[in-house]
Amino acid sequence: MKMTNEIPYKIYLEEQEMPREWYNVRADMKKKPAPILNPNTLQPVTLEELSGIFCEELAKQELDDTTPYFSIPQEILDFYKMYRPSPLVRAYCLEKQLDTPAHIYYKFEGNNTSGSHKLNSAIAQAYYAKNQGLKGVTTETGAGQWGTALSMACSYLGLDCQVYMVKCSYEQKPFRREVMRTYGARVTPSPSMNTEIGRKINAEFPGTTGSLGCAISEAVESALSQDGYRYVLGSVLSQVLLHQSIIGLEAKAALDKYGIKADMIIGCAGGGSNLGGLISPFVGEILRGEANYDIIAVEPASCPSLTRGVYAYDFCDTGKVCPLAKMYTLGSGFIPSASHAGGLRYHGMSSVVSELYDQGLLTARSVEQTEVFKAAQTFARIEGILPAPESSHAIKVAIDEALKCKETNETKNIVFGLTGTGYFDMVAYQKFNDGEMRDYIPTDEELRKAIDTLPKIN
Amino acid sequence: MKMTNEIPYKIYLEEQEMPREWYNVRADMKKKPAPILNPNTLQPVTLEELSGIFCEELAKQELDDTTPYFSIPQEILDFYKMYRPSPLVRAYCLEKQLDTPAHIYYKFEGNNTSGSHKLNSAIAQAYYAKNQGLKGVTTETGAGQWGTALSMACSYLGLDCQVYMVKCSYEQKPFRREVMRTYGARVTPSPSMNTEIGRKINAEFPGTTGSLGCAISEAVESALSQDGYRYVLGSVLSQVLLHQSIIGLEAKAALDKYGIKADMIIGCAGGGSNLGGLISPFVGEILRGEANYDIIAVEPASCPSLTRGVYAYDFCDTGKVCPLAKMYTLGSGFIPSASHAGGLRYHGMSSVVSELYDQGLLTARSVEQTEVFKAAQTFARIEGILPAPESSHAIKVAIDEALKCKETNETKNIVFGLTGTGYFDMVAYQKFNDGEMRDYIPTDEELRKAIDTLPKIN
Repeated sequence: MKMTNEIPYKIYLEEQEMPREWYNVRADMKKKPAPILNPNTLQPVTLEELSGIFCEELAKQELDDTTPYFSIPQEILDFYKMYRPSPLVRAYCLEKQLDTPAHIYYKFEGNNTSGSHKLNSAIAQAYYAKNQGLKGVTTETGAGQWGTALSMACSYLGLDCQVYMVKCSYEQKPFRREVMRTYGARVTPSPSMNTEIGRKINAEFPGTTGSLGCAISEAVESALSQDGYRYVLGSVLSQVLLHQSIIGLEAKAALDKYGIKADMIIGCAGGGSNLGGLISPFVGEILRGEANYDIIAVEPASCPSLTRGVYAYDFCDTGKVCPLAKMYTLGSGFIPSASHAGGLRYHGMSSVVSELYDQGLLTARSVEQTEVFKAAQTFARIEGILPAPESSHAIKVAIDEALKCKETNETKNIVFGLTGTGYFDMVAYQKFNDGEMRDYIPTDEELRKAIDTLPKIN
Repeated sequence: MKMTNEIPYKIYLEEQEMPREWYNVRADMKKKPAPILNPNTLQPVTLEELSGIFCEELAKQELDDTTPYFSIPQEILDFYKMYRPSPLVRAYCLEKQLDTPAHIYYKFEGNNTSGSHKLNSAIAQAYYAKNQGLKGVTTETGAGQWGTALSMACSYLGLDCQVYMVKCSYEQKPFRREVMRTYGARVTPSPSMNTEIGRKINAEFPGTTGSLGCAISEAVESALSQDGYRYVLGSVLSQVLLHQSIIGLEAKAALDKYGIKADMIIGCAGGGSNLGGLISPFVGEILRGEANYDIIAVEPASCPSLTRGVYAYDFCDTGKVCPLAKMYTLGSGFIPSASHAGGLRYHGMSSVVSELYDQGLLTARSVEQTEVFKAAQTFARIEGILPAPESSHAIKVAIDEALKCKETNETKNIVFGLTGTGYFDMVAYQKFNDGEMRDYIPTDEELRKAIDTLPKIN
């Protein structure tokens, strides 16, 4: 522990203090997340089956719920050193503005060209693919954050990268597309005419602007139909949470360095990759009876899988080609309202996060987007970072909690995850600046309909 | 000095190691830059005259060529702590890719929401304005980098910020505009109907998309016509170089910490704010006879003020309302070809940098933009940062020099300034990705014509 009373604005770990292992929180869970199922047999998927879709090492990581630590290969550590450690920032200016006795810290993952934490898993997934001698990987991307991260990782390793980008994003977000192309990725608007499923959808729905579900199906088909290719995914999976544990491990090391004990950990939750990664080592301490933390998952009111979904087996993709997972879900047919501005639009939630939630190890809260953008603006103006809409969900609740501390006069240590920057989200910010942003909360009837699309195996 | 042989990927200074003074290189110059002139009297401008345009403390800094160090006020130091120190990065991956014995370092100024080094001076200028009890500041912006930085600084301090944005940029770069608006700035497309000069230009040239020169004139008029307002500028001025010396001071402190002696310092040069700031402390050592460095300014072949301009008194703005400066210039009537993609399009060069260049303390090189974007792409793919087109001029020459070291087998320490990120420059990247980018070198005849616009006072 550092012998200083003065906590700097930003805590950077030294290179030799950076974690050299990922932490697998499943190993410390007495009740494990339910196994993922083969969509054809509805039986727990085997390593062999999974190795057809993912490269072998990743398939192993996906199925391993007992090994607590995985060594991070040196090549990945070297890549991490280019943009990590990410700073743990003490939000002195925000605290002053809120006039709160709380101490607010945020782990900022946006200082890299992908603009988010996604790079942490992209490099891992690309590395194992390369290491297995594969030629390339395929994936889908919606807004483009994950696609950008994967393009960067593949370009660094000399791996081919094929991205199916939801057609409306491809057309409306040309800048993200160009970043991917600059990194050498082949970006195809989905549905395309390259795949059977794409041709089928184009024939059935002429002029469709695509969906994430369709893009996943095209990416999977494309991987399966090319020699030396595998499919990769940027969230939801347990392997992704494993890689993202680097966020929480670094955050904890930075806190420990200054003898700070967090009281509350807050993260935004879409598929769960950031939240799961941030909270893993802290949850591990709870599970081992070593410490206690209030952990809060924040999701959009327009896509409330934890707060209004059901805990059941569901398809991970609309095309129903991927394994099924038991998770908090709104049903794979659920599509958030078009007025919803940012990411966090996945119908389900990581099965690890879902199981932790079900066991009461974390609570969840849903927030409306105009409030989220108001928090984003406050934060941008006073802390100097323009946050991604996704990350701003966590900011909103961190501010709420800091204001509660003001009322109760408690000096809590609040830690939240600032997953990324909003430079490619200015269309949403413009709507907010122009006062044209609207909230939308799905009705019970809408949710019931979507939940009716759940497979009848529960 | 740190007792380690291992130089980390990124050298971060600790908070207590951060510079607390700016360095004014003019103090160590035996032959000083020529004084700036009042455009009406053509006599050296007085403090009183200058204080009508700039706030008083900044006017003092502008005219002071003898004080070597200026204390950085605590409020500015606190703001700096939010995004500084910026890392000095060892480009291990680039070195490996180039297979060069050279050691390459870059000082990365892009890790803040303005995306560039401009914030270093924006906060200083906003602070002194606030401190003088002013209500607000006015400025112009082309692509929007400076306008964004100033908006951030003003929003932090609670100062009104009025930005005249060149109309074609306002329309073509809505995202930059929205970032400024998110920070509460009032952004007006220029020429506007708010000012006399704007109305005049709109009447004379209906449908004009504006120019930087016109936007400057509108911003100055606007400041002069409102009580409690002053005009601020993001480059060229000596006060800006003073604030930007933080870049060089941090870089030098980081090198010293690991006992590294730079052999070569490379920076891109438009108005000179980044280059001047980066090289100041190193040039100071040369001037005091303490060390020697090869210093290279890199400019676009399409706007070659140092390599093909003349050293003479010229107008700093097209509207001819600002003081005249002696500088390397292409003539205030010079406008780079429309095919020129990035910034670095100013017709002149900081009078400090110009005088240092004239004294032979630095050399200059011009490079064509397709080569610059090729270097940018190489760098992005291997170092993981998507650079701004401006910064990529320095990357191009750093790579050239590293390859020369490979031929001669010399282990030189090359330091270059990576001023910013290219997230808002994807239109230019797209042109490059599509193979549609063209080079343009002005003919001697074109340059002669522009240089003919110089005032006849030299």
